[in-house]
Amino acid sequence: MEEAGEPPSNNANSNVIDDETTRCSVTQQSMEADEADANGEADLENNSLHQPLLKRNRTLSASHLAMVGAKVSYIESLDYEINENDLFRQDWRSRSKIQVLQYVFLKWKLAFLVGLLTGLIATLINLAVENIAGYKLLLVSGYVEQKRYVMGLIILTGANFLLTLSATVLVVFFAPTAAGPGIPEIKAYLNGIDTPNMYGLPTLLVKIIGSIGAVSAGLDLGKEGPLVHIGTCIASLLGQGGTEKHRVKWRWYRYMNNDRDRRDLITCGSSAGVCAAFRSPVGGVLFALEEVATWWRSALLWRTFFSTAVVVVVLRAFIEYCSSGKCGLFGNGGLILFDVSNVTVSYHLMDIFPVALIGLIGGVLGSLYNYALHKVLRLYSLINERGKLAKILLSLTVSVFTSVCMYGLPFLVSCTKCDPSISNSVCSTTGRTGNYKRFNCPKGYYNDLASLLFSTNDDAVRNIFSTNTPGEFHPVSLLIYFVLYCILGLFTFGIAVPSGLFLPIILIGSAYGRLLGIAMGTYSKIDRGLYAVLGAASLMAGSMRMTVSLCVIFLELTNNLLLLPITMLVLLIAKSVGDCFNLSIYEIILELKGLPFLDANPEPWMRNITVGELADVKPPLVTLRGVEKVSRIVDVLKNTTHNGFPVIDDHTTIPTSDGIKARELHGLILRAHLVAVLKKKWFLEQPRKTEEWEVREKFTWVELAERDLDFEQVAITKQEMGMYVDLHPFTNKTPYTVIEDMSAAKAMVLFRQVALRHMLIVPKYQGDGIYPVIGILTRQDLRAHNIQTVFPQVARSKGREKQK
Amino acid sequence: MEEAGEPPSNNANSNVIDDETTRCSVTQQSMEADEADANGEADLENNSLHQPLLKRNRTLSASHLAMVGAKVSYIESLDYEINENDLFRQDWRSRSKIQVLQYVFLKWKLAFLVGLLTGLIATLINLAVENIAGYKLLLVSGYVEQKRYVMGLIILTGANFLLTLSATVLVVFFAPTAAGPGIPEIKAYLNGIDTPNMYGLPTLLVKIIGSIGAVSAGLDLGKEGPLVHIGTCIASLLGQGGTEKHRVKWRWYRYMNNDRDRRDLITCGSSAGVCAAFRSPVGGVLFALEEVATWWRSALLWRTFFSTAVVVVVLRAFIEYCSSGKCGLFGNGGLILFDVSNVTVSYHLMDIFPVALIGLIGGVLGSLYNYALHKVLRLYSLINERGKLAKILLSLTVSVFTSVCMYGLPFLVSCTKCDPSISNSVCSTTGRTGNYKRFNCPKGYYNDLASLLFSTNDDAVRNIFSTNTPGEFHPVSLLIYFVLYCILGLFTFGIAVPSGLFLPIILIGSAYGRLLGIAMGTYSKIDRGLYAVLGAASLMAGSMRMTVSLCVIFLELTNNLLLLPITMLVLLIAKSVGDCFNLSIYEIILELKGLPFLDANPEPWMRNITVGELADVKPPLVTLRGVEKVSRIVDVLKNTTHNGFPVIDDHTTIPTSDGIKARELHGLILRAHLVAVLKKKWFLEQPRKTEEWEVREKFTWVELAERDLDFEQVAITKQEMGMYVDLHPFTNKTPYTVIEDMSAAKAMVLFRQVALRHMLIVPKYQGDGIYPVIGILTRQDLRAHNIQTVFPQVARSKGREKQK
Repeated sequence: MEEAGEPPSNNANSNVIDDETTRCSVTQQSMEADEADANGEADLENNSLHQPLLKRNRTLSASHLAMVGAKVSYIESLDYEINENDLFRQDWRSRSKIQVLQYVFLKWKLAFLVGLLTGLIATLINLAVENIAGYKLLLVSGYVEQKRYVMGLIILTGANFLLTLSATVLVVFFAPTAAGPGIPEIKAYLNGIDTPNMYGLPTLLVKIIGSIGAVSAGLDLGKEGPLVHIGTCIASLLGQGGTEKHRVKWRWYRYMNNDRDRRDLITCGSSAGVCAAFRSPVGGVLFALEEVATWWRSALLWRTFFSTAVVVVVLRAFIEYCSSGKCGLFGNGGLILFDVSNVTVSYHLMDIFPVALIGLIGGVLGSLYNYALHKVLRLYSLINERGKLAKILLSLTVSVFTSVCMYGLPFLVSCTKCDPSISNSVCSTTGRTGNYKRFNCPKGYYNDLASLLFSTNDDAVRNIFSTNTPGEFHPVSLLIYFVLYCILGLFTFGIAVPSGLFLPIILIGSAYGRLLGIAMGTYSKIDRGLYAVLGAASLMAGSMRMTVSLCVIFLELTNNLLLLPITMLVLLIAKSVGDCFNLSIYEIILELKGLPFLDANPEPWMRNITVGELADVKPPLVTLRGVEKVSRIVDVLKNTTHNGFPVIDDHTTIPTSDGIKARELHGLILRAHLVAVLKKKWFLEQPRKTEEWEVREKFTWVELAERDLDFEQVAITKQEMGMYVDLHPFTNKTPYTVIEDMSAAKAMVLFRQVALRHMLIVPKYQGDGIYPVIGILTRQDLRAHNIQTVFPQVARSKGREKQK
Repeated sequence: MEEAGEPPSNNANSNVIDDETTRCSVTQQSMEADEADANGEADLENNSLHQPLLKRNRTLSASHLAMVGAKVSYIESLDYEINENDLFRQDWRSRSKIQVLQYVFLKWKLAFLVGLLTGLIATLINLAVENIAGYKLLLVSGYVEQKRYVMGLIILTGANFLLTLSATVLVVFFAPTAAGPGIPEIKAYLNGIDTPNMYGLPTLLVKIIGSIGAVSAGLDLGKEGPLVHIGTCIASLLGQGGTEKHRVKWRWYRYMNNDRDRRDLITCGSSAGVCAAFRSPVGGVLFALEEVATWWRSALLWRTFFSTAVVVVVLRAFIEYCSSGKCGLFGNGGLILFDVSNVTVSYHLMDIFPVALIGLIGGVLGSLYNYALHKVLRLYSLINERGKLAKILLSLTVSVFTSVCMYGLPFLVSCTKCDPSISNSVCSTTGRTGNYKRFNCPKGYYNDLASLLFSTNDDAVRNIFSTNTPGEFHPVSLLIYFVLYCILGLFTFGIAVPSGLFLPIILIGSAYGRLLGIAMGTYSKIDRGLYAVLGAASLMAGSMRMTVSLCVIFLELTNNLLLLPITMLVLLIAKSVGDCFNLSIYEIILELKGLPFLDANPEPWMRNITVGELADVKPPLVTLRGVEKVSRIVDVLKNTTHNGFPVIDDHTTIPTSDGIKARELHGLILRAHLVAVLKKKWFLEQPRKTEEWEVREKFTWVELAERDLDFEQVAITKQEMGMYVDLHPFTNKTPYTVIEDMSAAKAMVLFRQVALRHMLIVPKYQGDGIYPVIGILTRQDLRAHNIQTVFPQVARSKGREKQK
């Protein structure tokens, strides 16, 4: 064990203690983990936090702070381990076959409900957006037709202003966590990081209404990301059986009372969300698998698939219902982005070059976009720090700018004469949708830029994707459109409204895709609409770095298998190129928010450091004895923020040998269980081991599954302080252990693979006087960034290249 | 620790040893694992093995025997753990950035080559089959037209006889492992079980030629399964850099020299195979993910996707080339099974009932099929035991029976008059393909059963899937077809030729699907061809229990997204119903072959037994000291079959404390590394710890990565026997450990999740005289079946229901 970086007071080094003298003063031994207390609600906004965005992990045991919404909050780790203590074992053994069936049926029922509700809410959002935005555009079109341009501008800007205001006020005052897409936080949740207030009822409601407001306001953002978040909120609420405060306490619901089943349900929710966003059931499952989930089981594959199937059926029923015009201004809008049913796709070997070029550009632009967005988000966090008003003003500024550009820029381009082959009813339309918008042009002419700008984003995508319309858009219009959306895409994302990243990226990508198609001229015979689709795919792959799920989403969007090989090519090139430059946009946001995400692959230099060395630089270990004094437990709970404590018995008689005594590692006890014991006042007059029935009389497994960490309310008398608690029945007897020589890289892989919250480090030595636990590892201890801060020389020892 | 089942001589119980007296006689301590020696080549055919199929795991430490081909062989476990010994760490640190890039590039290059070669071989097989079978059918058609029926029968039976003979002789004499589909063995390989001779060059060649022979012979088997096996063979050969004997030893190839990278490449190979079989790139990836692979990483998702993309491009190029008639009798045959481009799919809410019915029937029939196939395979193994001639005779009998049925049964049905709406050039054809075969009918009439039977299997599938032909097939013909293929499907699979399971199941399923469609009459408007497709999907889900991958495969086959919701419904119902009855067909075969596959979910009763209890019933532990005598090493290698030995130092001084001595668990050393040390004769005159440079001069990591276990050739002199070896540099210092109280269920999950071969059990006690390792767990110890044999009372304690 070599010198450590800057260990503050490194006396935990002595994992060998003198047996006789210190045996009773284990109290002075101390230590453990970095898990913060659960008062995650605490608003730390007024903290002395002046870094642009959260960068707080100076030591291994950094407290769990992260950006939640626009605030900094404590966050907690989740525990996907099965806590094998006596109570669990007993409860588990007592489950009958019927109860097991109930449990399985409950999981399926919840997966069904997640799909159903997500589908219904997606329907609702689509309906609302199409109607609000539709009537708004119709109204303004009227003024434009009457040449009352200023009035049109005022109406449009005003309506958008009000819609943005409502969305942003809701977000700022009621649910700051509803801002943004929510996908990074979902990714973090499935990695084991519980961001507070992320999946509650207020967040859900604000997300729905805010999303309707923001999208109808014509801002450059999508409803796709928010839909994913909505799906997970529904899943989380269903999994808990209600909101934090109002929860159903049905008996059979108790089986869901663990992080593991909630995680699975939230995975279903995210798939259902993607499916609802793109009508892509297989794509939704793959998105959850490729991008969102950290752990995956094949049983889960099947259940997420079921959820997405339900979503598709709901959406389909809704479309059939609305096709007869019962849904106001809602046509097919918002649900079918690209229709190639009337285009015969044909491409040849020579088309590989333009296709590869699209991929290349997508990769470069995607990583540039990530880089620029990173900068903008840091800038925005400075603005957001100035308080709620600043956030609202920022949103409104973006809204006004967007409205002015949407309305004003089309006046800059000249009108285009309608192609005589297109009937007049299609060309030069004045309605709310349409590929050839008349806008300020005379009859028989159309304004190509208005077709793209003066419409909802979904319509814009459909227009720019439109096939068999090679000459529709003038390159200059496309260029203006491209530049404008690059700017809007960067500056809209960070404002305090629910905003998805998919749509802005699709808009930018399709613009340069179509531009490239025009530039190719007669070289390639690929349809220009297809170029736009490929451009959108390439920018998504370049920025989000997904491949298979994107490919399937595009396959399901375009409904054409023949496109598959070229789509794959574009995606592979764009992702490869993008990976050369920086991380994916989600990873960048995760890092900005300070969420302690554990990557799949450890940094190579993490092989050069052992977990024993990590334990040395942590605060000293805090352990408890199997039968512990109440005062000691209260002391430990008050003075540490740790969430798990090793339980160690001195002088246990080893059952198989004749009376030999040794120190025994009994297991790990959770803070929540200690609090539960104190609350129930299950105290013993004398230190003794209790019988199983004694505990069972007092506690059920279900009660212990509750994560109640509020320790303040418990009043313990002085007399009680002198009493004892038998911790054995509450102790998880089978914590995961690693040997002290294990490299940090290998330990991290183990930690992530089995989804742990705590991992004990055991010594490689055996002998009298050696303590059976050296330390506890938690998520923060295994993050490359944290280790790097404490051991800069190790990190420097071996480049930064990552082995994949 | 309670009483064990029937421990032969249970004295390993005392994990506490008297320190002073036994310290030097650790030699008598002993133990370990069940990993068999590597002479997997040993032909055990003449063993006293009289059970119908392998059922040998009577104790926890059963030796690794499994059916390989038709023989019983020793098999070995694979090691996906990174062996962190000093040499690895040193080698790893010395890798430059360029070498890391070379490594990454190598992996991609190999993934490309796997795709390319799989695509080319799939092309070759398709070409060969279509031409051989085509000319055969043309010839026989000629005789039928001339009413020379007996001659036709003789020619057809004779040709099929010869083709089957060639395939079966190749398989029986050159590569018994090439029989069957190979998918269960691939699944086992990716779970960590290395079946010998499974992925060699002979297997590859026999599989290609045998598959061509068997499929051209008109047997009821497909080329899909074999193509998956071919893909993995290619991947394995490429990953090794050649065959066992002839291997390229390029310097940069050394990075592939580990089980982990080979596993990833073989996963690519299996995806490429599925993709080549169905032209379904996304389906191929998902098949590997859902059905075949045990471990999955998102980096792998991307690389398998790349492989399948290459396959699709190759197949597409080949189809374009052949479309101009340069490929003999090859049209589009064998590559497009279902073409719905000219069918408008429409269905309504009421169609949910027939669709659910198909799913229900599929589930019931699928599990029945699994049950019956299990019985037939047990029967066949009795025949196969009688030697090579018996196997050949069995194949030939099946071939003759198939030929006679194919030719004879169409004579039983009456001719059908052509629908006048169909032109005569389409109806009543005499060629090799065609939906309305004339066969023995007069002009203007066709024989509907001959359209299905008297053709290649691919053509039969196309015919039965054909759309807009509601009245084409008479129910009686379909019923005959269904019954015939149920019989053929059961009795053809087990014969000694390369045979896939997909096609027989598709044939049976499509038959009852179409029958059901006819039975529905006017109730449902779904096309009869679609009924056939759904029937095929349902039977596959009912038998193979895949959902998402099958759904995508069918999506890509049918190229129609609108079918997705009903396909999903059918698959979900069929799988759920099937799961109520028995295991999937692949799991049944895995069990029959005795492959120690580790399931994803432990049996519930495995929570009631701890790893400490498992260790008690194992043979005693064999450990080595850090600096060990040569004679002891030779002794251990000769007298045990274990593959890993814990290295334990007595009386080590703990560096951080002042001179306290303790027993140290240094790590785990592999048999292969012991053999390597003996072969290089790296002996020391005196027992001492060596310096790092001493080892580095003598050994490289690459040499140690070779799995050379042939210990016989090493001649060690008597003088050398008295010398010493420093084992420290070869010891994996970071073995994975579990605490003795860990339940078997939790230990199994850990073992599987991190893909281990050995896992050490450490005591929960700390004290003088306690041994730092209690036992070693291997794959066999954690299999439910093995535990059940030794601890029947535990298994009985808690039903058989499995928690999912």
